[in-house]
Amino acid sequence: MRSAWVIQLKPPPGFFDHRIKIFEKLKAEYDEWVKAQPRQEINITLPDGSVRKGTSWETSPMDVAKELSKSLSERVVIAKVNGDLWDLERPLEASVSLELLDFEHAEGKKVFWHSSAHVLGEAAERHYGCHLCLGPPTDDGFFYEMGIEDRPVTQADYPALEKLSDMATKDKQRFERLVVPKETLLEMFGYNKYKKYLIESKIPDGTSTTVYRCGPMVDLCVGPHIPHTGRIKAFMVTKNSSSYFLGDPANDSLQRVYGISFPDKKQLTEYKAFLAEAAKRDHRKIGKEQELFFFNDLSPGSCFFLPHGTRIYNTLVDMMRTEYFKRGYQEVISPNMYNSKLWETSGHWQNYKDDMFTLDVEKEKWALKPMNCPGHCLIFDSRDRSYKELPIRMAEFGIVHRNEASGALTGLTRVRRFVQDDTHIFCMPSQVEEEIGSLFDFMQHVYGLFGFEFKLELSTRPENYLGQIETWNVAEEQLKKALDTFYPGKWELNPGDGAFYGPKIDITISDALKRSFQCATIQLDFQLPEQFNLKYRSGDEAPNPEKPTRPVIIHRAILGSLERFIAIVTEHFAGKWPFWLSPRQVLVIPVSVPYVSANSARLGAGANAILRMQKEYASEVADHLNKLGIFADVDNGENTLPKKIRNGEIGQYNFILVVGQDEMDNRSVNVRNRDDVGTKARSETIPLDEVAKKLVALKTSKSLQNKLV
Amino acid sequence: MRSAWVIQLKPPPGFFDHRIKIFEKLKAEYDEWVKAQPRQEINITLPDGSVRKGTSWETSPMDVAKELSKSLSERVVIAKVNGDLWDLERPLEASVSLELLDFEHAEGKKVFWHSSAHVLGEAAERHYGCHLCLGPPTDDGFFYEMGIEDRPVTQADYPALEKLSDMATKDKQRFERLVVPKETLLEMFGYNKYKKYLIESKIPDGTSTTVYRCGPMVDLCVGPHIPHTGRIKAFMVTKNSSSYFLGDPANDSLQRVYGISFPDKKQLTEYKAFLAEAAKRDHRKIGKEQELFFFNDLSPGSCFFLPHGTRIYNTLVDMMRTEYFKRGYQEVISPNMYNSKLWETSGHWQNYKDDMFTLDVEKEKWALKPMNCPGHCLIFDSRDRSYKELPIRMAEFGIVHRNEASGALTGLTRVRRFVQDDTHIFCMPSQVEEEIGSLFDFMQHVYGLFGFEFKLELSTRPENYLGQIETWNVAEEQLKKALDTFYPGKWELNPGDGAFYGPKIDITISDALKRSFQCATIQLDFQLPEQFNLKYRSGDEAPNPEKPTRPVIIHRAILGSLERFIAIVTEHFAGKWPFWLSPRQVLVIPVSVPYVSANSARLGAGANAILRMQKEYASEVADHLNKLGIFADVDNGENTLPKKIRNGEIGQYNFILVVGQDEMDNRSVNVRNRDDVGTKARSETIPLDEVAKKLVALKTSKSLQNKLV
Repeated sequence: MRSAWVIQLKPPPGFFDHRIKIFEKLKAEYDEWVKAQPRQEINITLPDGSVRKGTSWETSPMDVAKELSKSLSERVVIAKVNGDLWDLERPLEASVSLELLDFEHAEGKKVFWHSSAHVLGEAAERHYGCHLCLGPPTDDGFFYEMGIEDRPVTQADYPALEKLSDMATKDKQRFERLVVPKETLLEMFGYNKYKKYLIESKIPDGTSTTVYRCGPMVDLCVGPHIPHTGRIKAFMVTKNSSSYFLGDPANDSLQRVYGISFPDKKQLTEYKAFLAEAAKRDHRKIGKEQELFFFNDLSPGSCFFLPHGTRIYNTLVDMMRTEYFKRGYQEVISPNMYNSKLWETSGHWQNYKDDMFTLDVEKEKWALKPMNCPGHCLIFDSRDRSYKELPIRMAEFGIVHRNEASGALTGLTRVRRFVQDDTHIFCMPSQVEEEIGSLFDFMQHVYGLFGFEFKLELSTRPENYLGQIETWNVAEEQLKKALDTFYPGKWELNPGDGAFYGPKIDITISDALKRSFQCATIQLDFQLPEQFNLKYRSGDEAPNPEKPTRPVIIHRAILGSLERFIAIVTEHFAGKWPFWLSPRQVLVIPVSVPYVSANSARLGAGANAILRMQKEYASEVADHLNKLGIFADVDNGENTLPKKIRNGEIGQYNFILVVGQDEMDNRSVNVRNRDDVGTKARSETIPLDEVAKKLVALKTSKSLQNKLV
Repeated sequence: MRSAWVIQLKPPPGFFDHRIKIFEKLKAEYDEWVKAQPRQEINITLPDGSVRKGTSWETSPMDVAKELSKSLSERVVIAKVNGDLWDLERPLEASVSLELLDFEHAEGKKVFWHSSAHVLGEAAERHYGCHLCLGPPTDDGFFYEMGIEDRPVTQADYPALEKLSDMATKDKQRFERLVVPKETLLEMFGYNKYKKYLIESKIPDGTSTTVYRCGPMVDLCVGPHIPHTGRIKAFMVTKNSSSYFLGDPANDSLQRVYGISFPDKKQLTEYKAFLAEAAKRDHRKIGKEQELFFFNDLSPGSCFFLPHGTRIYNTLVDMMRTEYFKRGYQEVISPNMYNSKLWETSGHWQNYKDDMFTLDVEKEKWALKPMNCPGHCLIFDSRDRSYKELPIRMAEFGIVHRNEASGALTGLTRVRRFVQDDTHIFCMPSQVEEEIGSLFDFMQHVYGLFGFEFKLELSTRPENYLGQIETWNVAEEQLKKALDTFYPGKWELNPGDGAFYGPKIDITISDALKRSFQCATIQLDFQLPEQFNLKYRSGDEAPNPEKPTRPVIIHRAILGSLERFIAIVTEHFAGKWPFWLSPRQVLVIPVSVPYVSANSARLGAGANAILRMQKEYASEVADHLNKLGIFADVDNGENTLPKKIRNGEIGQYNFILVVGQDEMDNRSVNVRNRDDVGTKARSETIPLDEVAKKLVALKTSKSLQNKLV
């Protein structure tokens, strides 16, 4: 519950006036200058190819939008002019191509949230009299980072910030753009040491950059922005945290306030429902409830997997291992720490040292491995290789450590210690297409087991690429062919976005809440084979000893970090595990009341003896299932039957088998399906042997349906 | 090949005379003193209870041995007088109990090898003119450590050392004992800085200790020794290495020469045969031949397991995991590194720091875990525990690191990184007996899978024990009861030999070459629960909050370090893996010559087509077996059939399946058993389905017999 809010207007008198005075003076000059520009007819080409007429320095994208339709003009958030983002009300200067983006467009959303950050900044200045620093959009909203002298931000501030933001949006403050020279910027923002530092260090002397104004708020900003704050119909402060100026712990400690906003109130209601659902599914919460894992301050970022969490972990590893064997992968085990000489060869020592845990061993520098690749190169290089052996698909469930700051760690999603379903495929350049095709097949199979859908993007040769251009061309051609074969028309191209050492395919899965995660990696590498001087005997009759034949390495993971994947699937399934992955598959409960069936001859037997026999039968059922590899528990405790059943339901057992006198007499069990709880479906009595067979079949099928068929 | 030996008599003239002159003078005085001692009749009680008469200061154990039998007097190596070792020819001083030990007795063997070290020292002094340091017996012979100024020891020296030793043994030099005061010792050994340091630092002023002489060699030594060097009938120098004086790298570098000796030439012949067999089975050799694993200088002591080595590794883990599930163990995963605060609680930081790899994390000291126990205590303590949950059997295949000096590392037997089949059983004191019984059952089952026999020893409360004496008594009583139940009359007691924190049971297995290894550990621990303040809610109605109920921890492993266990089984099986553990179970080979069977209709088909069909069938057979979880390869290469079969035999495939036209026509395979190679047994043709069924049954049975039944 949030406490009643109080608006405190902290800034000293004149706080806003100083910036605005300078802004208004320059703006008037600029408006004059615009008026003086020569008018001429321009052509505005729309995405459908149609062309509209306009006037230079007068017609704005918003004018075009209004012409097209009123609803569009109310919905559109930002323009794209000749491919660059452009304020809707900024006049066009010449003939252009024009696109109009709404909130549903990724770039439109970013602009919307960026403008919302300014609104939050305005509210924060009013509330705290703070010095703003940076206020960018994020993947799920925005934040503003600020220096507040005398107090931390607390949740109790949220209502005030929201109220001040609502006031700003109701104001419909126009976002006004202005180009300002560096020396004027320093005059404008001199009172704020953060902005001052940014202006001094980032803007070359003698140049200008833009500021944006909305209401009393003038901010250093490259923009662009929505037309006015009135577009923001719903605004919420979501969380706060502390940070360091420019991320450096040596600098001032700052406060970040996060928010989210929408062009429609309904969207915020939906978002709040989404947050509530996400909180219910939070893997840290479920991890605790189901006793899957925990963390301890004696080793932050290294998870302790409890017995039931370890079952999930091992089931995932077993599933991958089974696939590896089917698909011609070879598992290896390599060391966890190496002399820095290895990391110098791989380049990690030069480029990644701060992210590794280093240690001194016999007076030399060593590091714990942050990835398996260099070790796999040593394995490849441990003897001569022939082209006949390729491809070698070298897999390892190696424990890797990365030196994340303890403050940045979050549950299983950001850890220091993790295991990947890591594989390095060493192949000939000509084998890339086939290998990628097999990877797609593998990936589809695995993601299918969890009901994940996924998207693919190909990133190609960047400007700063290393290696030979023909190698790149051949590889990229093969990647495209493989993508076209498997996913015709269903993948996107990011030209120039590959790593300097090779092109890559990014795969994004989306979970039950439609959240996106990148788990799988397919990254080609032409560089590591050079650095480790990896070679193979080619089939050529006259090999050139000067120019050894190099394999290509494909780095690939499907689950990615097992830790993070477990977090994702925990939330995806909301802790209702599919049978094959479930750490608690079956709970057997004896009726345990001296009920005697009509056709039983034991009417005269003592109640205790009957109870004992029922318990024995319950244990026998569980043992029988355990022997078949099913995780079956028995509850022979003192609770009542309804209480035991309820505990089993809370424990998320996939099936509860109740056994009483009838079941004992007929060697059967009464089956309750987890998914039937709360429905009208009835439990059913089935012979034990049949249930056992069906449970094993369900486990083997790895079905997502919790059904005995 | 050893080069021809040359005797170089290096010591300067007078080297031996100095010590001998002092020795002879004192010895003459001593002999006079002995003569002057009063004679009286004494009783000498033998182990069978019989009593012999003797005279004090005259009768020696050897006199008794001669009276008993000539052969005994020639065989006996050392006496035990009132429980202490005693030179055979040293006169008894009063009535005593007497035991006579020969070379086959462990203590006799140690004395024999200790005396042999003196012979080696004598030879080394003659050969190098070196300064001797320490010369103890070891588990398999002895060594002498020495400072040699101007040269290292090389294998080329061995023949000269052996020849000089042989000369000393042919001399039948008597071992003479003498008690010498500290100041005289310093005079005697003043020329040798190592002995001088030992005398100065180890012998209190004003006291005496013993020296022993044999021939020209007088050595500082507590003894005892064999009667004379002539008892050594076979002598061999086995290896050499370098070391540091007192093991400290800051001190002088020394040379160690190792040897072995026997009272019978035949034993040396057998020993050489044993060495040859051991060399053939050396796990490093087989590891290389079978491509199981390798090491790299970038991470000494951390093994790289190649694909086939990883199969063995994973099969062992799977086997243990299956047993864990059956036997109510719970597997967990815990971090690999912890803040030193954890190690301070456990005591490792104070007592084990030098054996851990330490690192700095966010300005605090951390260490990689050398064992899993403290992490498991954190798991136990992660929530309230009730007596109803106990015993908790917490298992983990955790990677542990121990900071061994790189020079001390050997293959898989001494490593820096390893995984144990580690379990900590948290139980009530009253549950110890049952748990130990279950452990015996588990251990017997597991060792049976490898055909290992084992011995057990119970070590009980030492003088410096911690904890309450009643806890110790209850636990020791339970351990004894469990041992008596499972191994009546078959275990040994080492009173007072337990750790300060609890009693333990040592288990020693012996391999195919009768070598002994300690793999399993059963160690009770009353201390760790105190240090971690572990407690559980007892069933008591009125629990005492002042005195929490502590669980007992049983540290237990069966395989021990998987790395070392793999070394042991590699040598035990000499690389001929039992089917269930084999990384290469089946090789399928097509006949691949255009042979056409009489009842085939394909007489007219092209040879190439037939070849192709055979290869396809071979692949189909391998695929079929792979799907059943069998490691089956196919050799569809270019070699001839006999060459392929030979390669399969060298590769130690358990079964080779040859498929030709007949087999194809009948969907069968021709089976060759690895164990039939070199015998008259014939291969047999069996339907594929039947072979598959039998192979799966063989794998499931984990039989040591390589037989399809």
